[in-house]
Amino acid sequence: MGTARVVFDRWDGRYAAAMADVRFSAVRDLFAAASRPDVISLSGGMPDVRRVPHALVEKAVRDALRHDGASALQYGSSEGRRPLRSIIVGLMGESGARLSEDDLVVTSGAQQGLDLLAKVFLDPGDTVICEGPTYVGALQAFSVYRPRVECIECDGHGMRVDLLEETLRRLGPRGAKFIYTIPNFQNPAGVTLSPERRRRLLELSREYDVPVIEDDPYGRLRYEGGHILPLRALDPEVIYLGTFSKIFAPGLRLGWLAAPRPILAKVLLAKQGADLCGSSFTQAVAERYMTGTAWRRVLADLTRTYHERRDAMLDALAEHFPADVTWTHPEGGFFVWVTLPGHLDTKPLLAEAVERGVTFVPGSDFYPSGQGSNSLRLAFCYEEPAQIAEGVRRIAEVLEDKLALYHAFVEAGVMPAAPAASRLEA
Amino acid sequence: MGTARVVFDRWDGRYAAAMADVRFSAVRDLFAAASRPDVISLSGGMPDVRRVPHALVEKAVRDALRHDGASALQYGSSEGRRPLRSIIVGLMGESGARLSEDDLVVTSGAQQGLDLLAKVFLDPGDTVICEGPTYVGALQAFSVYRPRVECIECDGHGMRVDLLEETLRRLGPRGAKFIYTIPNFQNPAGVTLSPERRRRLLELSREYDVPVIEDDPYGRLRYEGGHILPLRALDPEVIYLGTFSKIFAPGLRLGWLAAPRPILAKVLLAKQGADLCGSSFTQAVAERYMTGTAWRRVLADLTRTYHERRDAMLDALAEHFPADVTWTHPEGGFFVWVTLPGHLDTKPLLAEAVERGVTFVPGSDFYPSGQGSNSLRLAFCYEEPAQIAEGVRRIAEVLEDKLALYHAFVEAGVMPAAPAASRLEA
Repeated sequence: MGTARVVFDRWDGRYAAAMADVRFSAVRDLFAAASRPDVISLSGGMPDVRRVPHALVEKAVRDALRHDGASALQYGSSEGRRPLRSIIVGLMGESGARLSEDDLVVTSGAQQGLDLLAKVFLDPGDTVICEGPTYVGALQAFSVYRPRVECIECDGHGMRVDLLEETLRRLGPRGAKFIYTIPNFQNPAGVTLSPERRRRLLELSREYDVPVIEDDPYGRLRYEGGHILPLRALDPEVIYLGTFSKIFAPGLRLGWLAAPRPILAKVLLAKQGADLCGSSFTQAVAERYMTGTAWRRVLADLTRTYHERRDAMLDALAEHFPADVTWTHPEGGFFVWVTLPGHLDTKPLLAEAVERGVTFVPGSDFYPSGQGSNSLRLAFCYEEPAQIAEGVRRIAEVLEDKLALYHAFVEAGVMPAAPAASRLEA
Repeated sequence: MGTARVVFDRWDGRYAAAMADVRFSAVRDLFAAASRPDVISLSGGMPDVRRVPHALVEKAVRDALRHDGASALQYGSSEGRRPLRSIIVGLMGESGARLSEDDLVVTSGAQQGLDLLAKVFLDPGDTVICEGPTYVGALQAFSVYRPRVECIECDGHGMRVDLLEETLRRLGPRGAKFIYTIPNFQNPAGVTLSPERRRRLLELSREYDVPVIEDDPYGRLRYEGGHILPLRALDPEVIYLGTFSKIFAPGLRLGWLAAPRPILAKVLLAKQGADLCGSSFTQAVAERYMTGTAWRRVLADLTRTYHERRDAMLDALAEHFPADVTWTHPEGGFFVWVTLPGHLDTKPLLAEAVERGVTFVPGSDFYPSGQGSNSLRLAFCYEEPAQIAEGVRRIAEVLEDKLALYHAFVEAGVMPAAPAASRLEA
């Protein structure tokens, strides 16, 4: 497919206008790079499914076929199978959010939820508000519908709601179609929205009448600190995206979207056009897998594993990274966000890193345009602690040359020192 | 969800403009009706997956987990797994179309292919050409992107290419974004595009520079007559949609989209935004299921079964249906299209049919607006021959009252007799 992008295209000029604005996913190429066994991958946010026992999956399939019979192989309802929706209601109840089976639909990963919400809400030129940096897949899903994206800066406590208020005031009531946020262990910044800010965000949502989309893929992967109630638990009008990718496996492509019923009815129409219905087979398998307690032991093992890896990364960063580089302290999830001083651009550094056998994601991928170039995302979810330490060491080597040059420039008065405010740290 | 459509919607006026045009799928409610065990379903086009041996599926899962290990549970590439794409290349080769693994992407059923193509090609107000009647799911997928839909009438040999030529001449070169056709055992009409018309359709596509989308879910389910080469075999610029729903099982939601590479590159971008990637798990299972020859024996059994059911339906129609009702003679696939005389509307008859314990789909569901109201679709894929005969008998009872009234009106000069040209028959 790589060559397809440069061949003569006789259909040029006949695509939908939106196709000119569609972002190409950096994530996709990174998945490819990460699949080379000699490269240490600190880029992709891939759960470590090698720790999910195959015997449990096989048993789930056997049970699904024996008990659900042909229905697991047949078309299903667009909402998703009711038993799976019951399980989701239970999961959300554990996190503090009360809802019923009729308040949600099963989606093909949370990514499909993003696409469906964009389809339901966005006309070209509409404004959406998200964090800056934010999830690259959300930017990609939104871009097809050609919105204007306003990014609200984050600090160590998540989205800066003071800046959100400024933006909402400037846009006026209903001035944006929605506010998109990842409150827990944000992708890519690793930061968590504080309880105070959650309450303030919801106040602002009501005051300016702008719905909130809460994307919560990592909520159950907490390594320190106490559980914080999701936005959906505080306000039933919050639209919530969940996923089985991190608590079971992403290969099944199962997520869910909970929303007020009028919105859900629109989402359902959009879903019927998009794929008729989700996979009954993977839903039936997930139902069986999520019944009983074995999945909880697997998830506890995964959480312990990710916790160790996060510690390994934070230790390695403290040991190897230069003093004027800062990073966030994630209490859960998969990612650490690293900020370099000044206007150092991390994009050209990636090739050097890959040459040394390690990958990361340049920060500018997580902004709609141009910002974040002096930052990068590191993922600690996939590699063993020793590999993580080695990967961080190699990236530090790449950074040191550039930083030496940068400091020489600053000392010579050619370049100003970086303002502290541009840094996102713990 | 049913009640969600009538509750007060405080978000009203804030949805994307497209949501006002989105069609509600009749298919969805029909799936629900068909699941009542006392109702004979002649409505939904559901493959009879009860005949797919569970042991074969279980073995496929076991093999997938043992041989593909964690990759079956992990995120995959947006194009789909290469081994599955190889299998698809083989399947298409058997039908006469030559292509390589890089000429196609795996989709979440052929329905996702329709959505992605609409996303890639359509701006509001663009024209698309399709058959009249046509697949309701295609109308639904397209409607989100707000095109003008031109329907080309069918007869017993498929789309009338003479009328297509008239339409293309009227619209001018590049006057439509694409021509959407289901050449084999069309859904809903059951008719097959003749080889001569296939060649003419492609000539017209080149002459007016309008791409063709060939949707071929039923191509392998032929009960009489010889194989006819797909359009993609005659012209590599044809965009082709295939599915595993009818040769394996719809519950896996696996289809594919083959297209010229510049178009495929756009489709891939759209797919990344829509769901990142398809399910590695179902793809790996399908790879194992489609290896060896057992699946061919299952498909041969299914084909024999559907053949018997088609015969049962055609026999019952000949026995029970009134003389002035006509229907098509499908050489394969799932559907028979029935035309009533005059302006009889089949929509209000559905409730009466359900009361007698049988379902069908009113013909107007298969047109963008208003047409086809004197027709209906019958599906013979799901019920046993005796049930099919009984279902047809019950529908005949519903029709007879209405027809008696109609004839009384015609004889009294209140209503004109139906023109023969409005009927689609074999």
